[in-house]
Amino acid sequence: MGHGDHEMAQTVVEHVLWWLKQVGIKDVFGVPGDFSFPVTDAIIEDKEVRWVGCTNELNSAYAADGYARIRGMSALCTTYGVGELSAINGVAGAYSEYLPIVHIVGMPGMKTQAGKKVIHHSLGNGEFDFYYHMTKPVVCARTILTAENCVSEMARVMGCAVRERRPVYIAIPKDCAEMKVVGNAGAGNSEIEMKSDQERLKAAVDDILARIRGVEGRGVFLPGIMAYRIGVGKVLQRLVEKTGFGFATMFHDKSVLDETHEQYVGMYDGQLMNQHVREYVEEADLVINVGALWGDFNTGMFTSNLDGHKTIDIYLDHAQVGYAVYEQVYMKDLISALADRVSGQDYVSELRAEGLGEAEGKADDKITAKYLYPRWEQFLREGDLLVCDTGTVSMGMGFAKLPKGAVFCNQTLWGAIGWGTPAAFGAAIGAEEKRVILMTGDGAHQMTATEVGQFAANGLKPVIFVLNNDGYTIERLLCRVPEYAYNDVTGWRYADLPRAMGCKEWICARVETNGELDRVLKKINENGHAAYVEVVIDQMEVPPLAKKIGNELGMK
Amino acid sequence: MGHGDHEMAQTVVEHVLWWLKQVGIKDVFGVPGDFSFPVTDAIIEDKEVRWVGCTNELNSAYAADGYARIRGMSALCTTYGVGELSAINGVAGAYSEYLPIVHIVGMPGMKTQAGKKVIHHSLGNGEFDFYYHMTKPVVCARTILTAENCVSEMARVMGCAVRERRPVYIAIPKDCAEMKVVGNAGAGNSEIEMKSDQERLKAAVDDILARIRGVEGRGVFLPGIMAYRIGVGKVLQRLVEKTGFGFATMFHDKSVLDETHEQYVGMYDGQLMNQHVREYVEEADLVINVGALWGDFNTGMFTSNLDGHKTIDIYLDHAQVGYAVYEQVYMKDLISALADRVSGQDYVSELRAEGLGEAEGKADDKITAKYLYPRWEQFLREGDLLVCDTGTVSMGMGFAKLPKGAVFCNQTLWGAIGWGTPAAFGAAIGAEEKRVILMTGDGAHQMTATEVGQFAANGLKPVIFVLNNDGYTIERLLCRVPEYAYNDVTGWRYADLPRAMGCKEWICARVETNGELDRVLKKINENGHAAYVEVVIDQMEVPPLAKKIGNELGMK
Repeated sequence: MGHGDHEMAQTVVEHVLWWLKQVGIKDVFGVPGDFSFPVTDAIIEDKEVRWVGCTNELNSAYAADGYARIRGMSALCTTYGVGELSAINGVAGAYSEYLPIVHIVGMPGMKTQAGKKVIHHSLGNGEFDFYYHMTKPVVCARTILTAENCVSEMARVMGCAVRERRPVYIAIPKDCAEMKVVGNAGAGNSEIEMKSDQERLKAAVDDILARIRGVEGRGVFLPGIMAYRIGVGKVLQRLVEKTGFGFATMFHDKSVLDETHEQYVGMYDGQLMNQHVREYVEEADLVINVGALWGDFNTGMFTSNLDGHKTIDIYLDHAQVGYAVYEQVYMKDLISALADRVSGQDYVSELRAEGLGEAEGKADDKITAKYLYPRWEQFLREGDLLVCDTGTVSMGMGFAKLPKGAVFCNQTLWGAIGWGTPAAFGAAIGAEEKRVILMTGDGAHQMTATEVGQFAANGLKPVIFVLNNDGYTIERLLCRVPEYAYNDVTGWRYADLPRAMGCKEWICARVETNGELDRVLKKINENGHAAYVEVVIDQMEVPPLAKKIGNELGMK
Repeated sequence: MGHGDHEMAQTVVEHVLWWLKQVGIKDVFGVPGDFSFPVTDAIIEDKEVRWVGCTNELNSAYAADGYARIRGMSALCTTYGVGELSAINGVAGAYSEYLPIVHIVGMPGMKTQAGKKVIHHSLGNGEFDFYYHMTKPVVCARTILTAENCVSEMARVMGCAVRERRPVYIAIPKDCAEMKVVGNAGAGNSEIEMKSDQERLKAAVDDILARIRGVEGRGVFLPGIMAYRIGVGKVLQRLVEKTGFGFATMFHDKSVLDETHEQYVGMYDGQLMNQHVREYVEEADLVINVGALWGDFNTGMFTSNLDGHKTIDIYLDHAQVGYAVYEQVYMKDLISALADRVSGQDYVSELRAEGLGEAEGKADDKITAKYLYPRWEQFLREGDLLVCDTGTVSMGMGFAKLPKGAVFCNQTLWGAIGWGTPAAFGAAIGAEEKRVILMTGDGAHQMTATEVGQFAANGLKPVIFVLNNDGYTIERLLCRVPEYAYNDVTGWRYADLPRAMGCKEWICARVETNGELDRVLKKINENGHAAYVEVVIDQMEVPPLAKKIGNELGMK
């Protein structure tokens, strides 16, 4: 839609959809409800925006999270009260992980609100702005639209989403939705981007370049998730190549730069894993972190140990060089300027990232962790989009070496189990050309498994692996008595699930031995159909990281 | 547990569990997480309290809602952030419907909080009390426990839950959970009950008795959901019998008094349904409402029309007689005093509640609403516990005449579709001796269907009906264009679902004709097994109330 179009008077809802298109959002996830009919009607009637129904609102939010990981931003539409509160955990996750979800909520009309009526989805006390208040900590901006405030409020709120990479909340009273907006529709995306202060930017660049030049031994980059979020991956790769520094990645940041790159030295996870990478990073003369977050699961449970004097942290809107902070210096501008100005150096290979090695085990043996994770690694192909739910699965695959162009998604900071299944659905909607692979655990999958049918309903062909280790294994590792019943989950016949949810022509299988796993993986790679595989494994068959976390941090 | 036991020093968690037992809670619904291990450990180790795992936290909250409907109060345990926010919509529903859920949240330890660490399930900004603030509008009291405040705070918070019949929120920092409480454990439930002001109570009783004596034509009771919540049903029935007044019930209040009672005149739903009941109620000399809520779906979408001069409203903590308000007069005391003091009068039958009549249709015909709802009514037996999800199903069954002792549960005010399946699970846990029947729609069921397996895992034998009308029919009735794609849901093979979720020896069936429905209903009633029946019906085959709401309130 060109700028010309919005010169015609738009309705409030049309203006909201115009904004979605301005920021590149083509799909809206959600569940309908009577208060949001004007919004969902407008989406159906708009030729450029698609409605993507989910089975419930939390799954819709997770799907929007997955879509935003691939496409940068996403949209979610729910009804008042019951809908928005069901979704709020997914929105909070997106807040914590810097994913700008535009959450559109249809609310009761202003007349109903003024009459303080006791209506469905309300708390029955005639107050209507509770949910607007409840959402405050998990969005970077929020608004209740009217015809009068719509143009200015949408520019403000969408500006925040674009700049801060966090969710925003937009409530539309039912009787305002189809009113014509007052005033002219605003500027597009290009005019709400962040701009660095040029003098501060130059100072930061000079400081960083001097430090790069000063490296006598080794410099190392830590490309972080924020660089991926704002789409500066290619520029960052150019910068890394020109400096001739190696790069390591942390868990949350896996695959921000391509893992087949010759300068990639491997996964850095504090003292928990890969001692040679830890030494490579922690003993470097200079460490440049470009947007990694220093959370517990990203730092080997706070066992990473970097010298602040020798570290540069580049964040969305500021940079810290040693202990000097440069405000109003934006990552995008800084990386770009550094890539342009840095002197070229050759990379001297000291260390090359390794994968998981050979799958160890006999064909007739029960599946072990030593077979499973290497075999899964081999299964991956160029460009795959791998979504790993939080749990032992991600702790195994986090150390696989991914093929060229493959992307790894994990909710490392928020860590809500069950996120994986709908997030994979949302990611698949956002990246139809990619093969989407979901790896999840039985406990996580049961939380949100209703979304399995939505893949088929939307013509998608995911490859889904459910690791059935008979309960919440990661919790068994962490709690005092692994056998306690709260760690149990109900024994499902997982491979029957896709058919029950309307998936046709899927490869569905349950595998218990290495040989069975091997055969089904080959079949999937030869065949191209959607697939759903239950991988049965002993409760305590876990990858090394899970074992370490259990031993060092568990309550045992 | 006797009063003596708490003289030994308890830990914080033990004290919380002691309180649960004091108020009669024997089961805790939830999903475990590392921050809540001390709580879940203590539950497992306590012989009188049982852990009931659910597939996810929203379902846990709905299950706790269902349990509280049957048992008065319930408990829910979730982990920090991801867990509590996933559950919050269920807690909000319990708030709006006056169900005291004790929500126990395991949170990061005080040391972690003081260190402002970036840890999993946090927003990454070193602040830890966000979720405590977010929960405020949907609980009547909340606290963060320490060893020092535990005794007094638990007495305060549990007192609020007992008196106000609303959820409460209790956060326990991980490192405080197993500390010994400071001070003596408090009083039990008996000492936190509400007590009326005796003079005000006497005045209210005198006023009401005078009005009852003054009735020359007809008086009528509207027994409401609050009377059921606080367990005064029997006393209320005695009062109704002694006055010789008939009683009608509204939708939310269905089955508060037994529908086989000779004084029951039928369902009152404003101008939408049952004109004869409307006239009976609205033309009476005196209407005594005992705790019904005046919400949209309880008043025929605000079409009920009662004369304030002739109406008495008795609420939890006050009564309104005509336009005179008596504060500090509690329902329990007032109903009891009225039942004791009122003069006996015989009931003169003017009207007798009718059921849905004969099931109309031929055996080979596709199932119609005219067959389905009467046939379902016939299927019900004495003492059944019927959980109807919000939607066309409840609008049909709301007008069935229930057998003796049968209970009808519906989330009439909050109206979150999907509530039914886990609420039925929770109700079944709370009332194992009753047959639990769930009636839900396809769209509602898909939201929370993961809970189906939990019935079997807990040895329960529900009878589940899923009305497959190919989408959100209630929304098709209300929106502008019924065919719009947002009203579609994915076509599941519902009858395959229980087996996929580990349910064995269940009667599973898909029925499309009246005869098939008839046969499976007979089989279920003869057999006593758990059952799961997909009832296929045309999109627009709806009961009368749904049609009226659609015609009068829809956007068409």
